[in-house]
Amino acid sequence: MATERFTGWVGKDASAADGNLVYEEFQPKKWEETDVDIEITHCGMCGSDLHTLSGGWHKPEYPYVVGHEIVGRAVRVGSKVSHVKVGDRVGVGAQSDSCGECDLCKSGNESYCDRFTQTYDGRHKNGDRSTGGYADNARVPGSFVINLNPYDKIPSEILAPMMCGGLTVFSPLKRYGAGPNKRVGIIGLGGLGHFGVMFARALGSAEVVLISRSRAKEADALKLGADRVIATKDEPDWATKHASSLDLIINTADSPNMPLTEYLGLLAPMGTLVQVGAPDGNMPGFNGFKLLAKNRNLTGTAIGSRLEIREMLQLANDTGVKTWANPFPMDKVNDAIKAFNRSEARYRIVLVNEKNAEAHL
Amino acid sequence: MATERFTGWVGKDASAADGNLVYEEFQPKKWEETDVDIEITHCGMCGSDLHTLSGGWHKPEYPYVVGHEIVGRAVRVGSKVSHVKVGDRVGVGAQSDSCGECDLCKSGNESYCDRFTQTYDGRHKNGDRSTGGYADNARVPGSFVINLNPYDKIPSEILAPMMCGGLTVFSPLKRYGAGPNKRVGIIGLGGLGHFGVMFARALGSAEVVLISRSRAKEADALKLGADRVIATKDEPDWATKHASSLDLIINTADSPNMPLTEYLGLLAPMGTLVQVGAPDGNMPGFNGFKLLAKNRNLTGTAIGSRLEIREMLQLANDTGVKTWANPFPMDKVNDAIKAFNRSEARYRIVLVNEKNAEAHL
Repeated sequence: MATERFTGWVGKDASAADGNLVYEEFQPKKWEETDVDIEITHCGMCGSDLHTLSGGWHKPEYPYVVGHEIVGRAVRVGSKVSHVKVGDRVGVGAQSDSCGECDLCKSGNESYCDRFTQTYDGRHKNGDRSTGGYADNARVPGSFVINLNPYDKIPSEILAPMMCGGLTVFSPLKRYGAGPNKRVGIIGLGGLGHFGVMFARALGSAEVVLISRSRAKEADALKLGADRVIATKDEPDWATKHASSLDLIINTADSPNMPLTEYLGLLAPMGTLVQVGAPDGNMPGFNGFKLLAKNRNLTGTAIGSRLEIREMLQLANDTGVKTWANPFPMDKVNDAIKAFNRSEARYRIVLVNEKNAEAHL
Repeated sequence: MATERFTGWVGKDASAADGNLVYEEFQPKKWEETDVDIEITHCGMCGSDLHTLSGGWHKPEYPYVVGHEIVGRAVRVGSKVSHVKVGDRVGVGAQSDSCGECDLCKSGNESYCDRFTQTYDGRHKNGDRSTGGYADNARVPGSFVINLNPYDKIPSEILAPMMCGGLTVFSPLKRYGAGPNKRVGIIGLGGLGHFGVMFARALGSAEVVLISRSRAKEADALKLGADRVIATKDEPDWATKHASSLDLIINTADSPNMPLTEYLGLLAPMGTLVQVGAPDGNMPGFNGFKLLAKNRNLTGTAIGSRLEIREMLQLANDTGVKTWANPFPMDKVNDAIKAFNRSEARYRIVLVNEKNAEAHL
């Protein structure tokens, strides 16, 4: 049973993003009978954790406990929660609230609801803030807790990073029809891109192509399931050579200097490029004819829905998609942040709360 | 019976775009039994006619006979053409060829086919070039000739400008679901925008909103069927005040300085902005969060298909949509060009080939 003081790795100022979290007590949200308390065993590290701690997107409200790729055991279940019981393995993604009543929420689009709040971000209706997964325990509204019992083939270390990173690329792949009649491109091979290649393959896409600057990650890409790599730095004529060759592109790159005109030109008529990386500055200007001459689409998605989480986990459970997880003991989280900042995730860091994990062996 | 020398208003150099066409003979394409010869009674004037004559988009091949909003009578019908007979009123839009065999052609998307050529632009497979509607006669491959018999309530002067201008906005309205459950915005009130407002209304859209710089055209917009006008120059807070209020926006504006971030912000979640105006330079950079935070779409369409022409004409025939046509005798075409260049079209100039029109009264 969790107490009303939780313990975790707390960000106290912007230096937290450089690996300066402090292990101490913090205040969980006030218990409600719609909540679930989770003893955390694993939490993935997502780029937005560090963006949040540094204030890259908006001014943070310290103290902050981040982390939204949570896996653990339910240790307290509110009387109004019916889909989880104490002892179940559960997961939480990058969301802890949305209104539940609007057309978006009712149509499996809750991550676009105006009231959508990330686990550690924004306030619930009662004014309380949920906290994140770099901790021993989390308290989360039950409707955002996924019961993981159906996905028992996926180890927690593999599963945790899927809850946000995996979902962020799975959602657009699914929404825009990745499958046997789609040639799919993934721009960028990082935490998101590596999931993109694997899920595009697992969904049965006709072709899976990594678009990267160099060939440095070509071997990894092929191992992950890519058919080929377009290396933009190494092939001066890449844009014309591969023009109109892909039906769907997921763009995980977020540089304001990306060659957007050329990326769009890779799409076949009526193809769609989905932006999932969020540039700090503007998207670059681009040649409008690339859209209108071939009825191409440029769109963007943010995370995904609980329904899509379940579809993704079922697919991973059935096909064996495996995160390339890079585990760190959670009490070495500051080292993990430093490794992340040196681009050493390759491809997804997972914090393992060892004392909780051992308790559940 | 047409002869092998046709007569028309010929562009001989870039000065043609300033109103310097010359009435003289020109060479039609070589007759094939798949062709139809048309005695032209009406031809709409489209901005791209002048772009073509001036070489704004690409280097023109003078002598040039432009004009792709053609209405007239079939005066010679190839033995391989079955849907038109001599004497029928016929129309031709901004297309005179495409391969006919690719998936795009076979799915009603021929204007995105790589072999797609405008009436006066590009070459047929036999190397010949079709010529345009600023002429006494045109010779056009029969598969691109629309039999207008079913649309007998639409006068030719009203119908001609729909063949390209009307279609260019009808196609995206139809493709992206304008109708009772869609709030539709039209950016810009010109030749395209005035059709946009009328067709959005005729399709039964829940709301039709003109987005314009000022209120100068507000009275026209309301008369055309708009419910309201957003005036971006006159309402400093327009972007926040009207945020997320529209489901579909057709953008006829083509300035590289357009406020694209703010336009995208007018869309509700999952809404779509369709670019139909083609900027000479790049589209401006924009805030990518406007797309991904609400799964908004930015796309573009080019003209439309023959199927969409027929759907559009049926709608106009049934509901009485009427081009605000500004007629000029075709032999005053140079005056008409000058009026166009002074932005006096208000909203669509139609050239009337009076001797042919009288012959068919």
